[in-house]
Amino acid sequence: MKLLVVGSVAYDAIETPFGKTDKILGGAGTYISLAASYAGAQPQVVSVVGGDFEKENITLLENHNIDVKGIQIKKEEKTFFWSGKYHNDMNSRDTLVTELNSLGTFNPIVPDAYKNTEYLILGNLSPVVQRQVIEQMTTRPRLIIMDTMNFWMDIMLDELKNTIAMVDVISVNDEEARQLSGEYSLIKAAKAIRKMGPNIVIIKKGEHGALLFDETQVFYAPALPLEEVFDPTGAGDTFAGGFAGYLAKSGDISFANMKNAVIFGSALASFCVEKFGTERLQNLTKEEIYDRVLRFVDLVNFDYKVH
Amino acid sequence: MKLLVVGSVAYDAIETPFGKTDKILGGAGTYISLAASYAGAQPQVVSVVGGDFEKENITLLENHNIDVKGIQIKKEEKTFFWSGKYHNDMNSRDTLVTELNSLGTFNPIVPDAYKNTEYLILGNLSPVVQRQVIEQMTTRPRLIIMDTMNFWMDIMLDELKNTIAMVDVISVNDEEARQLSGEYSLIKAAKAIRKMGPNIVIIKKGEHGALLFDETQVFYAPALPLEEVFDPTGAGDTFAGGFAGYLAKSGDISFANMKNAVIFGSALASFCVEKFGTERLQNLTKEEIYDRVLRFVDLVNFDYKVH
Repeated sequence: MKLLVVGSVAYDAIETPFGKTDKILGGAGTYISLAASYAGAQPQVVSVVGGDFEKENITLLENHNIDVKGIQIKKEEKTFFWSGKYHNDMNSRDTLVTELNSLGTFNPIVPDAYKNTEYLILGNLSPVVQRQVIEQMTTRPRLIIMDTMNFWMDIMLDELKNTIAMVDVISVNDEEARQLSGEYSLIKAAKAIRKMGPNIVIIKKGEHGALLFDETQVFYAPALPLEEVFDPTGAGDTFAGGFAGYLAKSGDISFANMKNAVIFGSALASFCVEKFGTERLQNLTKEEIYDRVLRFVDLVNFDYKVH
Repeated sequence: MKLLVVGSVAYDAIETPFGKTDKILGGAGTYISLAASYAGAQPQVVSVVGGDFEKENITLLENHNIDVKGIQIKKEEKTFFWSGKYHNDMNSRDTLVTELNSLGTFNPIVPDAYKNTEYLILGNLSPVVQRQVIEQMTTRPRLIIMDTMNFWMDIMLDELKNTIAMVDVISVNDEEARQLSGEYSLIKAAKAIRKMGPNIVIIKKGEHGALLFDETQVFYAPALPLEEVFDPTGAGDTFAGGFAGYLAKSGDISFANMKNAVIFGSALASFCVEKFGTERLQNLTKEEIYDRVLRFVDLVNFDYKVH
């Protein structure tokens, strides 16, 4: 089934201990859509770019069966640009440049053809923009997933809470879960965040995997231990996009199937970090994705015996 | 089967955000033996205490079917004492007092009756003491497991490496694995440590679980997400003791069974942190341990489908 994706489509310049890039394609909407496309979902993107956005980047998305009609092009403006440098441990980074450009005045317009989409994922954006998208839907989607970050908790917590109250699934990292809930224990944090509205809470722990919570159940998906993390940019968005795409494709939003969706998202994220930016996500095959999923199965598989 | 345990038997005074204790029973040898006893192994402890060591603490160990003949009592000295205070996040702590006392001149004497024990676990102690134990064995044990810590890496790395070269399994935490190997990636760290001798490397990641490596395989055991960690003291030793005890009891040292042993150790560690010191490890039932193991099974269980 179709998946409506709202998120930034951007240019990034990235420096890691392994090298640096010029401006390359990035943005939450880009990573989410690419990841969801590999699930066999049909992503429809609502976003904005500037007149400098290259045709070949649009073509890349279209080649992944991503519907780009909802990407506004503001000819007289530039595309959102972010530049960052990762520290040696790859777990922290400094932002060097943030130029909002066309994203600064982003007024999301959901094309009529998208307004009945059953699955909606709101990438990390202002919670006001996220809510404007929900409000344009003529039918309340079957599932609304949102990602957010500490930045919005710092500067517009009330607006953020209003949007959180409208969604079914929220995805945050461990530090953000602690900040949002005021609880250190992730179990307590998930409970507190569920009280804000979402039925499902996903807490991403980077190299330590991800936790999925509903009212009574918890699932722990490990991250695949990797020899080398080349560039973590976009890994969280790729995870979320894989999760959303898997659910949209299957049409099954049970907790049991969400566990599989978390594994699928984790598998895609493990590819994402192997190269700069979206490079590794541009030409994956079904076979290599399934092989990667099987490594997750192996990683946690045990057959307990009482001796 | 029997398990020879070498490790400190000590008194601890602990302060956490939840409260503080007077001197209570602690020490790696204590936690390891208690944990192993719940696996149905028959732990035999080699250690040393002072004249101040309470009879009731000996009785506690004996009541868990732990053979204490190898615990030397130095009447004129005092028992090793450690005091520490945990920070609010419970992931870091300050050591307030370390009095080596009787442990400072510990000359381990393995009773003749223990010298053919098939399973040996060396709790965190000076690598010289650990090696002295191995050298007293008349038959090379079927499996030697060692725990160590950054302290020994800082002050006697060469001695430590000599001991590491003699064991089959080494257990360290993630920071220690990085320090010992000089590698940030835990995959690379495990490879480098295996080259030092041990066939099996266990990397403990605290609230993020543990990784088990052999030459070609890796297993990720999550930690159970807990509402409250009351006191982390002894969790790593409890994990190692549960691991060693499970293997000794089953007599199966295949990688597949080591995965179960890691789960058993993780389950016991999840009890350990629920109360101060050894309190929660004093009266566990088989049923509650098995229930806890089943929570680990649930936590990671998924049945992947390709949609």
